[in-house]
Amino acid sequence: MTEGTEGARLWIKVDLGGGRQIGPGKIALLKAIEQERSIAAGARALSMSYRRAWLLVDELNRDLGAPAVETSIGGRGRGGARLTPLAQELIAAFEALSERAETAARPDLERLIARLGRTDQT
Amino acid sequence: MTEGTEGARLWIKVDLGGGRQIGPGKIALLKAIEQERSIAAGARALSMSYRRAWLLVDELNRDLGAPAVETSIGGRGRGGARLTPLAQELIAAFEALSERAETAARPDLERLIARLGRTDQT
Repeated sequence: MTEGTEGARLWIKVDLGGGRQIGPGKIALLKAIEQERSIAAGARALSMSYRRAWLLVDELNRDLGAPAVETSIGGRGRGGARLTPLAQELIAAFEALSERAETAARPDLERLIARLGRTDQT
Repeated sequence: MTEGTEGARLWIKVDLGGGRQIGPGKIALLKAIEQERSIAAGARALSMSYRRAWLLVDELNRDLGAPAVETSIGGRGRGGARLTPLAQELIAAFEALSERAETAARPDLERLIARLGRTDQT
């Protein structure tokens, strides 16, 4: 690997049109919610405010045209949040897509970084 | 093409690490500056304020570790701005990289859109 390349990567969002964008931020939030079984705890795990997390989930529900997160209030275990199968599929699809794009772009990225690295010496 | 797929695309940024990101916005600005031979006119063509354009160019120069835009003041033609060879290479590299990534991810993207399309009917 070229020196200084370690940190270089792609940052990929899926633009669904109509202002609907799904990127690493929303995907990370979904994964944190799944991990913590709670929107509040998921937000906390990402150092995100509850309000921001809630707004992102609301936006995701609209992006998808169907719920990404299901919440239950009270009951045993004091309620909680679960991802819907659609959200699970979204995560899998987004990760597959990102990995494929990044792999395909890697040689170009390495060349670019190598080129930029040379500017430091001139 | 699946119905509703037309608008779907990837939005790709190159993250060089250390907070340095180069994405479609900076690339579009460079191309507009090249086209207009002026930072001010390039900004105007993108409905961007001159201040914002200037800050982005300044950021780019730091991202690259070398100038992206060379400006001359006064003289024949009342000065103007030109891209450096490095900036030209950056545009070419970014566009090659984006196209390769998008092509690689396209089947995943189509599948995702088709899946989301189905949520409209449920």
